[in-house]
Formats: sequence, structure tokens, C-alpha cells
Amino acid sequence: MNYKMVRFALGRIILINGLLMLPSAAIAIIYGEGWQGLYPFLLPVFLCVVVGVSLSAKKPSTPDFFMREGFVVVGLSWLLISAVGALPFVISGSIPSFLDAFFEAVSGFTTTGASILSQPELLSHSQLFWRSFTHLIGGMGVLVFMLAVMPRIESDNVYIMKAEVPGPIFGKLHAKVRSTARLLYAIYLGMTLFLIILLIGGGLSIFDSMVHAFGAAGTGGFGIKSNSIAFYNSSYVYYMLAFGMLAFGVNFNLYYALLGKKFKEVFTSEELRWYLGFVFSALIMIIINTRHLYENFLIQLREVFFTVVSIITTTGYTVTDYDRWPLFSHIILLCLMFIGGMAGSTAGGLKVSRVTIYIKSSLAELRTSLNPNRRVPLTFEGKALDLTLKTQVNNYLSIYLLSFVILLVITSIHAPNFVSAFSSVAATLNNIGPGLDVVGPAGSYESLSVLSKIALSMGMIMGRLEIIPILVLLSPRTWRRT
Amino acid sequence: MNYKMVRFALGRIILINGLLMLPSAAIAIIYGEGWQGLYPFLLPVFLCVVVGVSLSAKKPSTPDFFMREGFVVVGLSWLLISAVGALPFVISGSIPSFLDAFFEAVSGFTTTGASILSQPELLSHSQLFWRSFTHLIGGMGVLVFMLAVMPRIESDNVYIMKAEVPGPIFGKLHAKVRSTARLLYAIYLGMTLFLIILLIGGGLSIFDSMVHAFGAAGTGGFGIKSNSIAFYNSSYVYYMLAFGMLAFGVNFNLYYALLGKKFKEVFTSEELRWYLGFVFSALIMIIINTRHLYENFLIQLREVFFTVVSIITTTGYTVTDYDRWPLFSHIILLCLMFIGGMAGSTAGGLKVSRVTIYIKSSLAELRTSLNPNRRVPLTFEGKALDLTLKTQVNNYLSIYLLSFVILLVITSIHAPNFVSAFSSVAATLNNIGPGLDVVGPAGSYESLSVLSKIALSMGMIMGRLEIIPILVLLSPRTWRRT
Repeated sequence: MNYKMVRFALGRIILINGLLMLPSAAIAIIYGEGWQGLYPFLLPVFLCVVVGVSLSAKKPSTPDFFMREGFVVVGLSWLLISAVGALPFVISGSIPSFLDAFFEAVSGFTTTGASILSQPELLSHSQLFWRSFTHLIGGMGVLVFMLAVMPRIESDNVYIMKAEVPGPIFGKLHAKVRSTARLLYAIYLGMTLFLIILLIGGGLSIFDSMVHAFGAAGTGGFGIKSNSIAFYNSSYVYYMLAFGMLAFGVNFNLYYALLGKKFKEVFTSEELRWYLGFVFSALIMIIINTRHLYENFLIQLREVFFTVVSIITTTGYTVTDYDRWPLFSHIILLCLMFIGGMAGSTAGGLKVSRVTIYIKSSLAELRTSLNPNRRVPLTFEGKALDLTLKTQVNNYLSIYLLSFVILLVITSIHAPNFVSAFSSVAATLNNIGPGLDVVGPAGSYESLSVLSKIALSMGMIMGRLEIIPILVLLSPRTWRRT
Repeated sequence: MNYKMVRFALGRIILINGLLMLPSAAIAIIYGEGWQGLYPFLLPVFLCVVVGVSLSAKKPSTPDFFMREGFVVVGLSWLLISAVGALPFVISGSIPSFLDAFFEAVSGFTTTGASILSQPELLSHSQLFWRSFTHLIGGMGVLVFMLAVMPRIESDNVYIMKAEVPGPIFGKLHAKVRSTARLLYAIYLGMTLFLIILLIGGGLSIFDSMVHAFGAAGTGGFGIKSNSIAFYNSSYVYYMLAFGMLAFGVNFNLYYALLGKKFKEVFTSEELRWYLGFVFSALIMIIINTRHLYENFLIQLREVFFTVVSIITTTGYTVTDYDRWPLFSHIILLCLMFIGGMAGSTAGGLKVSRVTIYIKSSLAELRTSLNPNRRVPLTFEGKALDLTLKTQVNNYLSIYLLSFVILLVITSIHAPNFVSAFSSVAATLNNIGPGLDVVGPAGSYESLSVLSKIALSMGMIMGRLEIIPILVLLSPRTWRRT
């Protein structure tokens, strides 16, 4: 373990994280919140600059940076920035308990959107802005962003990318990591800006538009009203946000391909078809199942479409209390929670590509059983599946289920009932946000026990980093000097 | 597809199934139930003999029998014997609805023990005997038993064994299939007889002892009282049955090894250690979690131990309404439901060997992440895991989850709540019996909808046959003439 490189990288990250609080300080000034609104940000900024600069002042002489170091940096930095990101909430008194503030910050940076606040409108503009800004930062991963400021060592970039970019398919982004990361980031910010403009066009204030676009971009989902997006009660806003979320749940490789005018790659994308197929099937089934609850089909369509997209992209914005929908719809929503968005997007969940591979290998196994002598090649995106990738995808399912069960067991110690425990783990490990029952759209995570909050915070980070880095962090082997 | 061989094999199976109803007819005579008790058995016996003999009278000239034929015979025969096995319930009027009677018979033959009867004591002795006797028949698989009467073609035996014996590890039983099957059957019946004697020694009537030993042997769990085993309220009976169930959840390879005096093989069995480890860990956790519900530790110990063993072996006998236990205990029980017994036992579930392989490959993946250059070999039972077996075990998890989700979606259409839907699928696909809430120890499957009953019947057969054969049966490819 190269402790010096780890220290250096963490220093840089803390520094950047501090500077990223400055826009929120600016909001405090714009809205005339005075010193009261300003110092909850300036104090952490000062702290971050001092600590960050002193940690990263001296560039290490040995720049060796292997996968283990990459995982440790990624894991630790999510814990650190969440701890630092919690400070504005605690200092301002908007969330007095540090654990609750930490949970909220983890939920922000991991773009989960699970909140312990039942009435976010009680917070000041600057606090709400910071809360949603963490989604924007978390979205493409603090560390993909960090690539631009890391010392030029090819290996570390690759490893950080590998731990960070969600989904099993890394594709063409491997090469020229730094410039690709910058390009991805430009696409990401450009799309966010476009969504902000669209929302302003729908009559939302600039502040509301920014905050909600951040939540959609990171597929996070922190609302600023206790009834989330339902507050606006506007078809235009619902559809713009829904299509926005849908777009941020798409593999960014495809936007990269679009920029390169490789349209064929987009139209033939198997993962995209499955993604849209899941959305469409769920839409139809839930519309049929909830028809007795709605008198107006257009109202039903917009609410169901919004909810389906919000859940499969693991955003978690709500326009209706779907906790009142029938059980069948709940089960469909739970399936979407586990599927999640496409690989290489900002969404959480198992990822469409993995789920597709699970389904296709199940069918292949079945065909092999019918005809033991015929070899059935397993293809994905038109290519035969590489055995190593297949093994990794399979092992991921085991690790994922094991993590799920462990979190469920811990959460069940204090949870009020099965649905709350099960859906809170599903909603955090898949980075969605709201679950069902006490943690449903009408509830919040506030009432959970200390133990559950800690476990679910770890769950959110595990979900965001696809589990392995945070487990590496917890392994004693990692900390042994070699 | 060799239709003639399939017809021949099914004819034999129907014939045997008919003859297996004669002991129940004898019970009707012993208990003086008269013609009323007798004809519900004699009518189906007559039917089975006529149909069975006419189907299997002519031995086919082409004895080709491949895996596809094996799967079809296995799948169809479970459906057929269940349909025939339902007749005594319908004819006698003890279960007037054919669907309910079919559900009960499927539940019996698959050794699930999920019942639509809330008051089994209303049935006559002969009906109760037949209901539990299906567990004994189902236990080692009607078709492992059938090996002894099948024409001597090596290949078919192997294929039927492969589709039938639960668990991924087939081991040494492959060779000399026929004689091994006979030996296994002798062990199975010997153990059942021993358990009957032990129960009689505890003061149970011969009838009660037989019926309960059948349920334990097949890890089925049909009770004859509405409060199941709690009726006897005797520590001796509880412990004898608990250790009986525990013994029938053990891989029969190990008993085979014991007979061959290969004690080392038993003591070094990794799967056995994991199995006992799961039982012991669950016992400790639930005892701690339920301590506030019990004043007497000995009462608590016997109830928790019995329940843990009953659930992990997927038997489903109950001595207490564990639905009233806290959520944490429910989650532990749900975990046990999915783990199931050892491979090559009469138990259902994913099987201890598979779960062990999932856990070990998760850990191996983690170790590879720490040290990408070091190859971490995955071992089980002291040997490196064969890649084909590993792929099959992984694919099984995908197929299993997919089947689970599909059954959950179907069941959720009419189920009253999430816990009932989720636990009814878990309790049938894993061949346990009682679930939680409406299908819990105090409830029954009677209130479920027609659609749910059909889906869960298929689930029980899929669980018993480890899914593939029943899917092969449903594939149009199977029925195409080549």
C-alpha cells in the first residue's frame, strides 16, 4: 500500500470538495441569508482548504498506484466527503444530529435521495442548494471528475475509473482516460444545463429549476417540497423531468457515440432496447393495475410514467404516493428498483446490462438442457460474452445478494415491519431513495434506528461503488504493510 | 423425442402410483371406515392399473432415451401423479374442489407441506394417511424409486437421476445407478422406520408416529392437527422429530459413506459443517432475539430449535406460531428458507452446497480485487471447483431468481399483502410449506386465488425438480418432431 499516494489523492479530493461548497455560499449571499447562512459553508471551506493543501502539498516521490490503492482512495473519499458535506447541515442547525446529517450527505453524494427530512421546505435556500448540489457532484462520480486534476499517471486513472463508473461494461472509454473523462463531464453538465433551461421554460424559478435538474442529472432525487414534484402539478414539468431522468439513465457511451456521429451504434444498442423495454412493460402493467384509482387517463399516464422512470433510473422523485397503489404495482416497482439504469449512466441498481446477461444466461442454460450436445453461445451487444466478464457478472450477483441479506438482517433488528426493512435496503443499496411504508413517498428515514442509519449509509456507498471498493476498505489485508 | 419410450415410462409410473394407494385403502379397513372410506382409493387404483398397464404393455423397440426425454418424463410424471393423487380427496369429498385437491397433492408429492386445510383433523384416517404417504413417496423422488422397475438401459437411469436428485453435486452415486438407487432407498426407509419406532416410544399412537415420520422423511411437513406438532406438547417428541428432520436434510452420500465405513469422508465434509453452522448460528440469533417472549429457557430452546430445523430442512412442521416472533427472527427464518438442506437430501431450497459456493466465490472475487495478479482458486470439499459446475451453479441462481420474480409477480395480483405474497412464493419454491401472515403457521393456502394456486403448484414442482425439467416441459421445442 502506497500510503503517500493515498494521502496525496485524498488531500486533493478534500480541497476540491471544499471549493465545491462555494456556490452554496454564493446562494446564501444572493438570498440575503447574511452571516447566519454564510458561515455554515465558509467554516468547512476553510477547514477543507487547510487540510487539503497540507495533505497534498508534497507530491509523492513514488507514484505507484495499483488497484488496491484505487479502491481505498475511492472508498475513503466517499466517506470523507460525506462527513465534510454533513458539516453545513450540522453547523446551520438545519439537521442538528451529525449522524442524520451524515446520512443525508451520503444520500446526496451517492445520488440516492433517501432523506431524513420530512419537511425540506423548512431549510434555507443555501442549505437546499447544497443538499441538491451533492447530487450533481456525486452524479458522475467525484473521482471521474478528479481525473482532470490528478497527476499524469496512466495506471491510477484507469483504476479509479474502474472502481467508479457503474456497470459491468466499460467499453471504449478505457483509452485516453483523461480526455474522455473531460468530454463525459462536458456532456453531463451540458445536459444538466439544457434541463435547467427547459424547466425554467415551464415556469419554474431559476432556483427550483437548478435544484431539480441537479437531482435528475445525478439520478438522486432530493426534493425541496415535502410532496416532491407533485407540488408543481404541471404536465409539462412532469414530462420534462421524466424525460430528463430517462436520459440520465442512459449509458453515456451512447452520447459519446452520438457526438462521434456513430448513429448506428445507438440504434443497435441491445442494452438500450432492454432498458426502454423494461420501462414500457412496467408502464403498461401498472396502468392496467391502477386503472380503478384514476378517473382521468392523462393524469394517470403522467403519474405512472413519471414514477416508472423515476424508479428505474433510481432517482426517486415522486408525484404521487405510490404506497397506495395495489400490491401488484409495488412488486413491479420493486423489480424496477433492482434492475436500475443502464451501465455507464449515473443510475444505480444492478444495471440493465447485468440483468440482461442474467436473463440471457438463464435462457442459454435452458437451451443447453434441451440439447446437451449443442453449444449455445451467449452474446451481448452482438458479441460473444467473454468468459471473464461473465464470471465477474455472476460473482457480482452473489456479492450483491450477500450484501443485501446482511443489510436486511441488520435493518430488521429495529425496523417496524418487513416491507419497511426490505424496501429501505432495496432503496438504499440501489440508490433510489424512497421505499415503501414508513420509508415510502409520504414518509422519511428519520424514524430509523442509529444502527439502521449507519448500515444503510454503508449500503448507499456500496451501491454507488458497486460494493467491491467499500469491502476492500473494510478488509484487514488492505491495511497490512508489505 | 422418443414418444414411445415416454409413453412406456409414464405408464409404469401411473401403475406404480396406483398400487401405492393400496396401503391407504388398508388403513380405511383397519379403522373401519367401510365402503365410504374405501372406494375413494379403489376407484383411482382401478383407473391407474387399467391406464398404466395399457400404456406400458408393449416395450418399445427403440429404447433411445436422452436428457430431453428424461426431463419430459420427470416433469410430466409429477403433474400426472399429482392429478391422480388428488382423486381420493375429491372422491371422498374431504377436499371437494379439484384445484384445491391438486394443490394439496402437489404439495404432498413435492414434500412441500403447504396445505389448503386449516383443520386437517376433520379428515378420516385413510385420507390423512394418504396425504402424508405422498411425502414418503415424493421424498426420494418417485423416479429414483422408479429406477428399480425401469428396463435396463444405462442412459435413461442416469438422466432421470440427474433431473431428480436435488443439488448440484451428484458425486459417487453416478456409477452403478440401479444398485445405488436401491441402497439409497433402503437407507431412506430404514431411517423412516427407526423414526417411527422412536416416536412410538414417546407415547404417540402407531398411526400418528407413521404419519409424522413420513412428513419428516420427505421433509414435507403435513400435520394432522391444526396446530401441527404443538398438539403433543412433549419435549421428547419435539427433539426426536427435530433430530429426525435434521438427519433427512443431510446429503445421502454421507450415509452411503457411513455404510462403507468411510468415516473420514463424513467428518471432513465441508457441506455438513456449513449446514450445521447455519443451524447453530440461526439458533443462537433467534434465541437472543426472542428471549423477551419466553419465561422458561427450556421451552424456548425446544421451540426455537425445532423451528430452525423445520425451516432449514424445508419440512415446515410447527410447534409455535413464529409469525408472532419479531421481524429480525422472521428475516433469519427467511434466509434459512432460501438456504434449504444439503444437496442430495430430501430437502428443498437452494441447497447448502450452492449457497456455500456463492459465498465462497463472493469472497474469492473480493480477494482477486485486492490482488489482481494472484489467482485465487475456488475450492469446495477440498477440491478446486470445476468451471462447468461453477457456471451451472451460477446460472442456477439466475434461473432461480427469475422464476422467483415471475411467481411473485403472478401471486401479487391477488395476494392481500407483500409479506403473504413474498413468503408464499418463498415457501413453495423452496418446498417448505407454511410462510408468514395469511399463509403462516396459523393460516392456510385456502384463501389464495385460483391463479395463485396454479402458479404456486408449478412453483412447488419447479422447486422440487430444480426448475429446469418443468421449463423444458413448457418449451415448444420439446414437442417438435425431429
